[in-house]
Amino acid sequence: MSAFDLEPWTAHHTDALEVALDAFLSPQALCAAGPVRPLHLVDAMRYAALDGGKRLRPLLVIAAFEAAVGRPLGSQDGAVVRAACAVELIHAYSLVHDDMPCMDDDVLRRGKPTVHVKFGQAGALLAGDALQTLAFELLTPEDGSVAPAVQGRLCGLLARASGCAGMAGGQAIDLDHVGKALSEDALRHMHRCKTGALLECSVRMGAVCGGADAHAQEQLAIFGRALGLAFQVVDDVLDVSADSATLGKTAGKDAQNDKPTFVSLMGLAQSRQYAQQLCEQAEQALAQTGLADTRALSALARRVVQRSH
Amino acid sequence: MSAFDLEPWTAHHTDALEVALDAFLSPQALCAAGPVRPLHLVDAMRYAALDGGKRLRPLLVIAAFEAAVGRPLGSQDGAVVRAACAVELIHAYSLVHDDMPCMDDDVLRRGKPTVHVKFGQAGALLAGDALQTLAFELLTPEDGSVAPAVQGRLCGLLARASGCAGMAGGQAIDLDHVGKALSEDALRHMHRCKTGALLECSVRMGAVCGGADAHAQEQLAIFGRALGLAFQVVDDVLDVSADSATLGKTAGKDAQNDKPTFVSLMGLAQSRQYAQQLCEQAEQALAQTGLADTRALSALARRVVQRSH
Repeated sequence: MSAFDLEPWTAHHTDALEVALDAFLSPQALCAAGPVRPLHLVDAMRYAALDGGKRLRPLLVIAAFEAAVGRPLGSQDGAVVRAACAVELIHAYSLVHDDMPCMDDDVLRRGKPTVHVKFGQAGALLAGDALQTLAFELLTPEDGSVAPAVQGRLCGLLARASGCAGMAGGQAIDLDHVGKALSEDALRHMHRCKTGALLECSVRMGAVCGGADAHAQEQLAIFGRALGLAFQVVDDVLDVSADSATLGKTAGKDAQNDKPTFVSLMGLAQSRQYAQQLCEQAEQALAQTGLADTRALSALARRVVQRSH
Repeated sequence: MSAFDLEPWTAHHTDALEVALDAFLSPQALCAAGPVRPLHLVDAMRYAALDGGKRLRPLLVIAAFEAAVGRPLGSQDGAVVRAACAVELIHAYSLVHDDMPCMDDDVLRRGKPTVHVKFGQAGALLAGDALQTLAFELLTPEDGSVAPAVQGRLCGLLARASGCAGMAGGQAIDLDHVGKALSEDALRHMHRCKTGALLECSVRMGAVCGGADAHAQEQLAIFGRALGLAFQVVDDVLDVSADSATLGKTAGKDAQNDKPTFVSLMGLAQSRQYAQQLCEQAEQALAQTGLADTRALSALARRVVQRSH
């Protein structure tokens, strides 16, 4: 199979995602008709979700869809775009709340002041809440653009990846262990929940939208799990090896907050090697899917491991 | 039609809801299998959602279901119980976040310390987040107990009632107008979003679970809207006329926070009269549904207007 150039693929879809998110986050789309509108909330939601971020999760949704369906995303694939945006909104909400003073107390995100710095804590709290809700609104349009049974399946995948058994639970385990030891097994479990679940879910949602068979869905889930863990290992590596300007967020926070990380547990060199191993596991799962063209997924996995921020 | 005794009906269903919520909020049901579990988060979620509250929203779900289907709720109606619990979890999450120091800064709720007082602000933030997510998890079980298309419909109703065009938007409008004037029209709109949307949604979700026809669904929605507004008018009345011990939360907060209310706008006597009018509107809509037995809904509406806390 010919070489795959990720850059134009990413640029094309990132632009389209930005347009779609901008429309879903317009005051017209968001607000109830009436004599007064919560425009401060809309501004905070837009600030949190637009014009920033690598869009890794929605790109995984699209790449998994394209792999499952065996053709490029087209204008008829509104459900996939909704699924992609929904996952990104869950990610955006989690960042808004994680940055708040009572959590990580971070003032810089993607090189900009965090939402609570710009809109106040109450504004950030509400914006995060409403971004989470909006994710489920996007998956359940009343215009027939997503089949009702698919709506239910996508909502279920997204909710389970985001809640107590997924992202929120992982975040809670993280908070519970600041300054405390964690075994490598427990650390891996925490990150499977905190970061991995939503990355795996992205791949699964794309596979569902693309009608992948059960075997392909299972292999894609394995791919997503390995990718998710690799992502976090690389995050831990970058936290100690990159500077804040490159990261677009405050570097060295983990050590500062006395948080157990892969680097603190297995060292820098071995963490890098572990990320590489996980990337290879992810590639192997892709090869097992039986799908004809998984080059975008493969390229995204490599980019996760090789990224500098 | 014979008189309807709301008390045993409420007691029966409230007990059953408590059992169902307790099961949905068990560590076994909530947590991913693994070497470490977020038990502090589970405790905070349970504290926020169990053993308290009037359970008005889930009771409305059940009453609307029974009216639509024309028989009492039975053990085969797992979908209805899930819908009822999901609405209550959204309500519970909103209380947890509204009570936080950056919002209403309230330390007392249902006669107990609020979640952030008991579990810290980070704990309250995460518990609220995870309770919202859990609502959508409950609506999308993988065990076949809720038909996939119904899953999508219920998630859509709940998300739209909770988000920027509903509860979160209403809360944002409220925050934007502390110490500022609001027209009666704007105040009504704010409360339609903030409180009314979720109450209306409760009735609609019950109607969907019960397979009500389009006409009955529309009249039930009108009932829910009138009831929702009546609820808020009565809330404003109680805030100035009841004491904290009776309310189970701090009384007089609205005036203290310089918030526009129906009482500040139209006075106490006229607010009481307005609540009564809304209750009559709700009754009229019920009469238009064409459903045989709407006595539980009717009794719940009367209780909303006559309640002392």
